[in-house]
Amino acid sequence: MSRFVECVPNVSEGRRGDVIDRLADAIRAVEGVRLLDRTSDVDHNRSVFTYAGEPEAVLGATHALVDLALREIDMRAHKGEHPRLGAVDVIPFVPLSGVTMDECVALAHRFGHELAKRHDIPVYFYANAAAQPERVRLPDIRQPQYEGLAALLETTHVPDAGPRRLHPTGGAIVVGARPFLIAFNIELDSSDLKLAQRIAREIRESSGGLPAVQAKGFMLTDPPRAQVSMNLLDFTTTSLARVWREVESRANAAGVNLLRGELIGLIPLDAVLAVAADALRLDGFTRDRVIETHFLE
Amino acid sequence: MSRFVECVPNVSEGRRGDVIDRLADAIRAVEGVRLLDRTSDVDHNRSVFTYAGEPEAVLGATHALVDLALREIDMRAHKGEHPRLGAVDVIPFVPLSGVTMDECVALAHRFGHELAKRHDIPVYFYANAAAQPERVRLPDIRQPQYEGLAALLETTHVPDAGPRRLHPTGGAIVVGARPFLIAFNIELDSSDLKLAQRIAREIRESSGGLPAVQAKGFMLTDPPRAQVSMNLLDFTTTSLARVWREVESRANAAGVNLLRGELIGLIPLDAVLAVAADALRLDGFTRDRVIETHFLE
Repeated sequence: MSRFVECVPNVSEGRRGDVIDRLADAIRAVEGVRLLDRTSDVDHNRSVFTYAGEPEAVLGATHALVDLALREIDMRAHKGEHPRLGAVDVIPFVPLSGVTMDECVALAHRFGHELAKRHDIPVYFYANAAAQPERVRLPDIRQPQYEGLAALLETTHVPDAGPRRLHPTGGAIVVGARPFLIAFNIELDSSDLKLAQRIAREIRESSGGLPAVQAKGFMLTDPPRAQVSMNLLDFTTTSLARVWREVESRANAAGVNLLRGELIGLIPLDAVLAVAADALRLDGFTRDRVIETHFLE
Repeated sequence: MSRFVECVPNVSEGRRGDVIDRLADAIRAVEGVRLLDRTSDVDHNRSVFTYAGEPEAVLGATHALVDLALREIDMRAHKGEHPRLGAVDVIPFVPLSGVTMDECVALAHRFGHELAKRHDIPVYFYANAAAQPERVRLPDIRQPQYEGLAALLETTHVPDAGPRRLHPTGGAIVVGARPFLIAFNIELDSSDLKLAQRIAREIRESSGGLPAVQAKGFMLTDPPRAQVSMNLLDFTTTSLARVWREVESRANAAGVNLLRGELIGLIPLDAVLAVAADALRLDGFTRDRVIETHFLE
């Protein structure tokens, strides 16, 4: 059974289709790596690539991506609405299975030091890989943006690796490790936006609810329906089944049923297994119990 | 994404460890095939091999298994408690994913005709691959056993493929296709055996309950607890989530909670996805939404 890491680099190019295609090709060319998703935004002038594989293969693909991005993207000419520090703005490594968060942190540190040396570029570590508490949150690191970073490299923004000067065309790169994020929405059989907002407030961590849960109440139109929209920042801490139950009990107490759940994007097998184990109260329901996992590369 | 078929041959050898090991090795030697389980019973003098892979690879492994079993096992000297017709008693093909039941039936027919020709052995088709209604049930075909079969080959047991005479040492082979069987038990938080028996009776197909469900009530000891023990003969007809709910509502009506579920052996990914989709009320939750499936061979 394999060990899987996901990587989700954000690159400061969302307009030149040929360049974006070649960046995607550079990832796909690495054996054992699967490009799972790519999205580009013209206004943000930014692309996000999502791929996964064994740790070493993912590192190889990420080096290939950065090599090409630094050749193709000139930050001196870059315009876009999204905050960014460099041509390759941020590179998070995400443990999927068979890999611990500590291993992903070590992977991020090793990769960041390799990047700094290979391209003579400043590197910052963020999220679980942060070397300083004020660098955990990405917006805090990215606040000066590319244009303002040069002036801060000797003061608030001394790099965690690499030189105290911007890469002339590439700027700087933020590298880190974070848990897999599951975006999960629950639609209520009701148009009571206030109910969705109250449930969201009660279950989110920021107001004393469930750990590693962000939540907001929204209104869907046509037909009008209230929705609780959530990010599960760590499904091993608070599971999909748990948030479903917490939303359901609160909605039911207000006389409202849940209509449906909606998972955005791809999710790791372990998150699915946890839902099944919860629903059927199975002990020790691990991935090797699923036939197809015996055919993983 | 791959197409997966499972095969579960029952071989009339459960005592000679070296022979059983070599039968297992013959399966494993075929590229793309995974041996998922093997169990041998000395009293039954019988072994069951469970393996899976792409249809063509599984056919290759099954030919290799039969070739070796017919060389090694002499039915004229075989003794064992379990009914059987031959050295390789029964070979069911089971669709796992990306393969329809009709394709598995065609696979069984093709394989049976190949066997008949390759070994000059009588072959019967059973279950979904049965060519005659009285050959759907395995016990009906197997009733005369190896010892009584020779006398019936011109009358009730004219083979579906191959000669009307027994293979001198190998007897005959039954080949078929059937849905994946999930063995699933639910433990009640109660020692009320009569309740478990009543629930089993209400939910099983044979007494007008859920289609493709077999169920019995049992008593577990130490601590004493009532259990509803089930076979789901086709989880796409009646799902794990459905039987859980049906058992739960009946137990709850009697003031009893469910303690836990227990899945026996391995199960297909699609059965797990269906449980998760049911629990979170997800529409169109298909396997490509699970990251790891993009790494299937």
